[in-house]
Amino acid sequence: MRLVVQKFGGSSVSSVEHIRMVAQRVAQTYAQGNQCVVTVSAMGKTTDQLVSLAGELSDHPPQREMDVLLTTGEQVSIALLSMALQEKGLKAHPMTGWQAGIQTSPIHGRARIEGIDTQRIRHCLEQDEIVVVAGFQGVSEEGEITTLGRGGSDTTAVALAAALRADRCEIYTDVTGVFTADPRMAPLAGKLQEISFEEMLELANLGAGVLHPRSVECAMIHKVPLVVRSSFVDEEGTWVKEAEKMKEELNVRGIAHDLHVARIKVLGLPNQSQALTKLFSKLADHHINVDMIVTSEHDDERIDVAFSVHEDEWKQACGVIESCATELDYIKVLSETNLAKVSVVGAGMVTNPGVAAKMFTSLSDAGVRIKMVSTSEIKISCVIPWDQAKDAVQELHSAFGLDVKEKASVG
Amino acid sequence: MRLVVQKFGGSSVSSVEHIRMVAQRVAQTYAQGNQCVVTVSAMGKTTDQLVSLAGELSDHPPQREMDVLLTTGEQVSIALLSMALQEKGLKAHPMTGWQAGIQTSPIHGRARIEGIDTQRIRHCLEQDEIVVVAGFQGVSEEGEITTLGRGGSDTTAVALAAALRADRCEIYTDVTGVFTADPRMAPLAGKLQEISFEEMLELANLGAGVLHPRSVECAMIHKVPLVVRSSFVDEEGTWVKEAEKMKEELNVRGIAHDLHVARIKVLGLPNQSQALTKLFSKLADHHINVDMIVTSEHDDERIDVAFSVHEDEWKQACGVIESCATELDYIKVLSETNLAKVSVVGAGMVTNPGVAAKMFTSLSDAGVRIKMVSTSEIKISCVIPWDQAKDAVQELHSAFGLDVKEKASVG
Repeated sequence: MRLVVQKFGGSSVSSVEHIRMVAQRVAQTYAQGNQCVVTVSAMGKTTDQLVSLAGELSDHPPQREMDVLLTTGEQVSIALLSMALQEKGLKAHPMTGWQAGIQTSPIHGRARIEGIDTQRIRHCLEQDEIVVVAGFQGVSEEGEITTLGRGGSDTTAVALAAALRADRCEIYTDVTGVFTADPRMAPLAGKLQEISFEEMLELANLGAGVLHPRSVECAMIHKVPLVVRSSFVDEEGTWVKEAEKMKEELNVRGIAHDLHVARIKVLGLPNQSQALTKLFSKLADHHINVDMIVTSEHDDERIDVAFSVHEDEWKQACGVIESCATELDYIKVLSETNLAKVSVVGAGMVTNPGVAAKMFTSLSDAGVRIKMVSTSEIKISCVIPWDQAKDAVQELHSAFGLDVKEKASVG
Repeated sequence: MRLVVQKFGGSSVSSVEHIRMVAQRVAQTYAQGNQCVVTVSAMGKTTDQLVSLAGELSDHPPQREMDVLLTTGEQVSIALLSMALQEKGLKAHPMTGWQAGIQTSPIHGRARIEGIDTQRIRHCLEQDEIVVVAGFQGVSEEGEITTLGRGGSDTTAVALAAALRADRCEIYTDVTGVFTADPRMAPLAGKLQEISFEEMLELANLGAGVLHPRSVECAMIHKVPLVVRSSFVDEEGTWVKEAEKMKEELNVRGIAHDLHVARIKVLGLPNQSQALTKLFSKLADHHINVDMIVTSEHDDERIDVAFSVHEDEWKQACGVIESCATELDYIKVLSETNLAKVSVVGAGMVTNPGVAAKMFTSLSDAGVRIKMVSTSEIKISCVIPWDQAKDAVQELHSAFGLDVKEKASVG
């Protein structure tokens, strides 16, 4: 018997009617002779409503309490989906994160799954039950309720698929698959049939938004075959799989963008390797994710370093750096928000040195000002002004031959 | 250092503003040098909203799933109250039922607390933390989330007070204390300064609604001094305590009523003791609570039995009896709804044989038709037509000299 893990996001369970449709999908998969483990997010706007309740009480709500608060959203979803499945005459068993044995690190608001004790889930599957697990949440060693951060339900699904050695993990969402670019940004974007883990990881990290980066990372490490498809449109989705199992290696697979970028420049750090180590350790201590890093010489004794962070962490990052002014011994800090990042991604890039040149040319032809550049083997990213992002994405999508003739269905 | 357990009901935490007021109350108690454990219910109408969501999915939502669903209500409250306390600079620690070590029987929807592992709470109290525990919920031995049934937060509070050997348990509610009758039914009802556990237990069981019967039972067994008072009005409440510690023993302490009564008559059961045993065992197997029972002779070989149940359980009770028709071998089942129960309660009654006669006389003078009577050492209850309940309560309140001259503040 095959084991399938399915994940349904917030928009897929946004109403009782939608929950019934999800139950129908799960019932189909079960009727095809599969064992089913289903992960769900909170209903539609629930999380936002809870966040706003907390906001009425506190400008900076404590993270442990936020986790206790927010995890109720998925708990409501597992109860309702289990009821909907039982209404169809199926046996369903709801489980919160702690009940499903999802053990995490103790960092509230962005915990990492450290292990899954699958005993309880396996026991229920043996009883022919469909197991419905709350996404996004777990429990720390100290018995505190934790959350995995935004998009964490994808990670829950993939981690469950890995721990249970599932045959596949299906991520249901409000789009029909992974596109060559966000169709809201590039109307001529088309759906990909398949994409490699590595490419998807770059796309996910670059803000493609369809899958959470950690979930892709986890799927890649454990070789979990992953498919992204629509909850509501019955159409083949996009398979995310190992590169060697793919049919063709495209030069550029897609264009990603991230509209929430801030840049911080620290000018005149001592030119010693410890200076950079110290700077980035301080930021890591405060759980600030640094993305692109560029260094340059300031003068003979000092260097400049520029790096990008998510705009939500920009203020905190500046605060950390300023509070360590003496220790870091820099001359000045400058920062800038309202930036975006556009990236071209493709596994074929590594053997094709013309990609970077083509990217810079098309951006420059379109009058887009490039503020930072960062490259990896399979992607090139540029930080640009926020208000030029849409033009940039369309320009690159067209320049790399990704435009489709007919607009595909999106979701 | 003294340890105080405080319980705040749904109306006390119905808004962010109210939660701030509750935090202020708790902060006061803490500032007076007490260790504090606080139990909260779900915010205002939350439970009803969740019940209605479930109702959209299923006519008979499964109880295990209902427990998973409903317990989110208290979880939201503990998170928000902890935030409000932390905003006041206090250390607060939210705990769900399972985190607080509240172990219950596995009967979903009406579990009983079987024990509390207080290790975690004690550890937090030692760190000077205010512990905020979700009321109404626990965890079964199998690790399933359970609820204690309506009013269960009172039981949580008293059980915590007993397990922690608290110095007192304060039940905050939307009224200023226990009244000689429900002021909505008897406008001349007055607040009691004190009442014995036994009397309160009768009042609670009889539908007085201020305290859940199980919580009073638990307080009586463990001798937990209990006070019922208002969340919003700063006024002494009503102390519930051991009879021997009370100042005076009144003849009649108060008038209780219950507006949700149904009566079932089973006519012509075989006149054997097993017949009754069988009948009530069947009902008990289905967790139906039978209240008053009256038997009479039908003929030489058969008996009639009449009993009352909560109107919510009436249909189920009739169904159970009808499904066992052959086995029970009765002649006929009759049932009636739209009934109420009024009761006079007082520890002094046992030495005063005139109370029953006085009760029947005043009801009969007021034209109230008595359908069933049941007595205990400290109460007499009559089942009457629902639409005569208000008249009956006022009549009895006045007849037993409980009317006050000036209307007290209620809440």
